[in-house]
Order: sequence, then structure tokens, then C-alpha cells
Amino acid sequence: MPEAPLPDDVRAFLAKPNPCTMTTLRKDGTPVSVATWYLHEVVDGADKVLLNMDLSRVRVKHVRRDPRIALTMLDEADWYTHVSLIARIDEVVDDPDLTDIDRLAQHYRGQEYPNRESPRVSAWATVERWHGWGAMKD
Amino acid sequence: MPEAPLPDDVRAFLAKPNPCTMTTLRKDGTPVSVATWYLHEVVDGADKVLLNMDLSRVRVKHVRRDPRIALTMLDEADWYTHVSLIARIDEVVDDPDLTDIDRLAQHYRGQEYPNRESPRVSAWATVERWHGWGAMKD
Repeated sequence: MPEAPLPDDVRAFLAKPNPCTMTTLRKDGTPVSVATWYLHEVVDGADKVLLNMDLSRVRVKHVRRDPRIALTMLDEADWYTHVSLIARIDEVVDDPDLTDIDRLAQHYRGQEYPNRESPRVSAWATVERWHGWGAMKD
Repeated sequence: MPEAPLPDDVRAFLAKPNPCTMTTLRKDGTPVSVATWYLHEVVDGADKVLLNMDLSRVRVKHVRRDPRIALTMLDEADWYTHVSLIARIDEVVDDPDLTDIDRLAQHYRGQEYPNRESPRVSAWATVERWHGWGAMKD
């Protein structure tokens, strides 16, 4: 798998509101994956991914214990085209005003996040390696 | 996450040709995910998943070294509905006549698999735990 930074066409693909799965590791190293929203950003030349989680989710514990995650973003029109990322969580921070989840909800749904009650946290991850298929073939 | 066996409505969902991602573990335990075809079957009451891989793929090595995998199947119409599985590879076997990949290709594309040259292997996995969201909420 090539190392980051990501090429421009992959960055353009990641800018779309693609279906995505995120894998975290349980205490014994077993992988577990779920569907997730994400936002890709380039910060000082590094590829970063914003994820946001309900504080009650077990995957918050997972990434605080082991920051290694896998992400796969699927093209909504033809999921043979997809991009896989190996990334590492840099930090997990509170999202008290729901600013981050609202950014994600606007990106995916064009509206603010409906649940204003449950506490949420944001995780910023740095992309380390990537792999592309279909139109995103590396 | 509830333990297997899967309820009937989850089994019905998994019978569809859903987009799916599969996570394997690298030698150092880092997770890496890709999109994949799968078939779900019930064998003697146990939930099994058939996966098929080009023999040259690194994930074949991964599952031979560490059989723990994660799968997430997304509803094609609304991927908020998804099912996540923790599974364990029981065996990796050659698919010399491409029988298994043709089953998968028929399921997903309604035709035999186009590449008749590259050697392929099948992996059978047993589902251990599951988690559902959206219409599949556990």
C-alpha cells in the first residue's frame, strides 16, 4: 500500500459524501467495523480524517486504547471503485456544541444533526497508507 | 454485540447482494479493510460467510496468519441500515474451477466471473458476533 500523502484524484474522491466503514480494534485485537460519516481535510500537507462518535459507543474506548483504524470509502454509484486507508487517531476531543457532527450532517444530509442531546466526541486521524480500486486504482 | 446465530431478518438482509467491506489484520495487528463480495449461508445452524480472493492478494496471507475478520454489509438504498459481523476464518481452500467466484459473480452481477486466468482461493468464515443499525437494529 502506498504511503500518504494522497494523490489529487483520491482527495477529490474523498471529498464526496461517500459511504464509509471504519474498523477499530477491541481489547484483544479483534477487528470490528461499522458504517460511518467522515470528512477528509488536508492540514499542513497531511491527509486528515474527521470522525465523530456518540460518546456512549464502544468504539470511542477502542480508539482511546489503540489508535490504529482502517477506513474504506465506497463510490455510491459503483462500489467497485473504493479507497482504503490505514490511519491513526491523533486525538479524541469533546464536541460540546455539536459543531463537528453538524459539519458532517451538512455534508451528508444538508441539515444539522437531529439529536441535540447525546454527548459526542470527534476523532482526528492521520492517513498513513492508502489503496485504491476501480477508478481510484493506485 | 449479540452472539450468533443471526435472527431471520438479518439473514434475509444478508441474502441480498449488498456492498460489503472486509477487514483483515496485518502482521503487527494493524487493521486494513477492502470492499468485497460475500455470500451468507447457514450450515448446521451456524452462520457462515463465503469470501473469495485472488491468490496474489495480501489479505490471503493475513487470514492464514490471523483468522479474525470484521465485515460490514451496507444497504444499497440507505447505508444507514447496515450489519456488522465479527467472524473467524475456518479454512482457506483453492477454487481451481472458479466455482465459488462464479457463484459470487452470479449473485452480484448475474454472470460468470470474467477473469478465468488468475488463481483464486475461497475462505469460509463462521460468524461469532453481530451488530445491526437502522432497519437492522439489534
